[in-house]
Amino acid sequence: MAKPFTYEVTKVCKQSGARLGVLHTPHGDIPTPIYMPVGTQATVKAMTSREMRDIGTKILLANTYHLHLRPGENLVKKAGGLHKFMDWDKPILTDSGGFQVFSLGDLNKISEEGVLFRNHLDGSLLNMTPEVSMQIQQDLGADIAMAFDVCSPYLCDYDKAKENMERTHRWAKRCQAAHTREDQALFGIVQGAFYRDLRAQSVETLGEMDFIGYGIGGLSVGEPKDIMYDILDHIMPMMPKDKPRYLMGVGTADCLVESVVRGVDMFDCVLATRVARNGTALVPEGRLVVRNAKYAEDFSPIEEGCDCYACTHHSRAYIRHLLNVGEITGARLVSIHNLRYLLRLMEQVREAIAQDRLLDFRREFYARFDMRGSFNRGEEQA
Amino acid sequence: MAKPFTYEVTKVCKQSGARLGVLHTPHGDIPTPIYMPVGTQATVKAMTSREMRDIGTKILLANTYHLHLRPGENLVKKAGGLHKFMDWDKPILTDSGGFQVFSLGDLNKISEEGVLFRNHLDGSLLNMTPEVSMQIQQDLGADIAMAFDVCSPYLCDYDKAKENMERTHRWAKRCQAAHTREDQALFGIVQGAFYRDLRAQSVETLGEMDFIGYGIGGLSVGEPKDIMYDILDHIMPMMPKDKPRYLMGVGTADCLVESVVRGVDMFDCVLATRVARNGTALVPEGRLVVRNAKYAEDFSPIEEGCDCYACTHHSRAYIRHLLNVGEITGARLVSIHNLRYLLRLMEQVREAIAQDRLLDFRREFYARFDMRGSFNRGEEQA
Repeated sequence: MAKPFTYEVTKVCKQSGARLGVLHTPHGDIPTPIYMPVGTQATVKAMTSREMRDIGTKILLANTYHLHLRPGENLVKKAGGLHKFMDWDKPILTDSGGFQVFSLGDLNKISEEGVLFRNHLDGSLLNMTPEVSMQIQQDLGADIAMAFDVCSPYLCDYDKAKENMERTHRWAKRCQAAHTREDQALFGIVQGAFYRDLRAQSVETLGEMDFIGYGIGGLSVGEPKDIMYDILDHIMPMMPKDKPRYLMGVGTADCLVESVVRGVDMFDCVLATRVARNGTALVPEGRLVVRNAKYAEDFSPIEEGCDCYACTHHSRAYIRHLLNVGEITGARLVSIHNLRYLLRLMEQVREAIAQDRLLDFRREFYARFDMRGSFNRGEEQA
Repeated sequence: MAKPFTYEVTKVCKQSGARLGVLHTPHGDIPTPIYMPVGTQATVKAMTSREMRDIGTKILLANTYHLHLRPGENLVKKAGGLHKFMDWDKPILTDSGGFQVFSLGDLNKISEEGVLFRNHLDGSLLNMTPEVSMQIQQDLGADIAMAFDVCSPYLCDYDKAKENMERTHRWAKRCQAAHTREDQALFGIVQGAFYRDLRAQSVETLGEMDFIGYGIGGLSVGEPKDIMYDILDHIMPMMPKDKPRYLMGVGTADCLVESVVRGVDMFDCVLATRVARNGTALVPEGRLVVRNAKYAEDFSPIEEGCDCYACTHHSRAYIRHLLNVGEITGARLVSIHNLRYLLRLMEQVREAIAQDRLLDFRREFYARFDMRGSFNRGEEQA
């Protein structure tokens, strides 16, 4: 039987060293570098599966913790798995719940066994372990599952970061032991906070475990972007060359471009849809707050030349009106645009790699992009 | 120059006397009987114009009062009119604001001149007169404008109902005098509450004024359905035969069928989208509360055999999950279904008239329809 998952690097950019690749999965091929829109609760917010396909989505992300709570993996399994449940026939990746351990930190208690969660909905307790995470993810049935890890905060002391990393490695082994689905790939997750030696150690240890792909966790957790880039500069050359590398939770346009230059293949982020619902559009100049009064009589599209439904059919003035009066359709139109913007950006990035001109592309990108229009993690939640 | 508006009765059902017709407008032909989805604020809630076209919508309704407040008719006019503003190239009908006078009754003061409104958004005063309503509607530029009328409540004494009706007639004349757009049809509105002689007088007076079409106002304002049908039985035979008849604000499936049998050609109602957002689907059996726990593991579509996107792609279990976790996509899918359900019902009604079997169709309709699953006006707002 042919292996269900193979990753090929099809081209290395002569100018930047960034790579083009293809990850083959049971639900189709994923071209890399790729941006993965986030469908936390088995839908990308305000979007249908058909729309996600129409805007060129190649792979979706869904959240294990949220789906475990509602509707529960048993229901999804009864439905025939996540693909059938949400009518999405392309690849899906599920996270492990590990980031929720981190981001809902005051609601849980971590031990060597796993994490005792307090369900944020009803306060009941649930025990998430590497084995439970694997069971849930196998029941959900995504193409790619992630190992259950321990994420360290930005300002974490060395000993704690080392402890979290070492536990992540032990848990990664337990995940491998518990993971049996052959039609599902398991990715390990590199940790080590902002300590270069820990990161190097994590890459080495997990590399020896021969995962199908690797997540880079614990970045974009509040640190300045330069510090994240510095860690990437340090660890990317050590990462296995023949495996896809997924920078978890990163999704501003500038970070995507900078990270691809450094060798990252996969990204996810909720920013595109979250800011959309607040009336902010992602554009080559950074951001455009469609809700602002200055667009009230602006009959141009959100982004001139964008091929999305919102830009080819509706004006800033119309969308601003919809946002202003609280119509869901306004949030929908900006969501469509923002997702398409990031997917299109990655199409352009892949094209630039194919043409050995990714550094030129980056320069052109910054010629338009106003850094004041970018986002830092967490900012968009304000 | 050919008249921009003509109405043809193309067929009368031998079994029921109901009619098939076509209303020709500058933005295309409208087959009657027809259900008009409501896009109060220049969008049907949670829907895009493209989706409205895809589900077979032939004409949309928009609200003059709401659009006057936001974004204002000046902006819509600058955009090139409502069709361009909302990217809808088929016919549009705007109401006159008269029903808002009635339904926001504690916020306004009616005189012979017009209505002094208190803007429900910011408390500022605005003066709506027949002339102002015509000016706004002409600026909005829908295909069909409605005369500015005075609606009486269900339990209105005779003298007050007569006074409101006579004022409606005087205002109808002022609307005709103020209305100058030749590419926009003006419909008069029959009033007279639940008094047969007043209704007859209103039909006669307005009939002599030779409007392009006629709204029937002041029904479905809280009365039992039988009382509404009784008024329709009384007045429909008197209505001009060569003009379209629009029963305003009526939109439950049973009322649509009963009213077509009595000779009504056009309908509008917000019920389909309003109940959708609460998780209730319209089905041949009446209603299906998708949100209910009993559908948690039901992998069948909302309505077996329905051709809408929701029913051909998604299960009750999935949609229930989305509603249950508060995802907009859930409200969207039920909205698509509910609108398509009413549009499809009217397609079936037109087909039954064409085949001279509308009374058979009505019998078949009631064989499945549980009246306990119907709605009365206002109930869906609870």
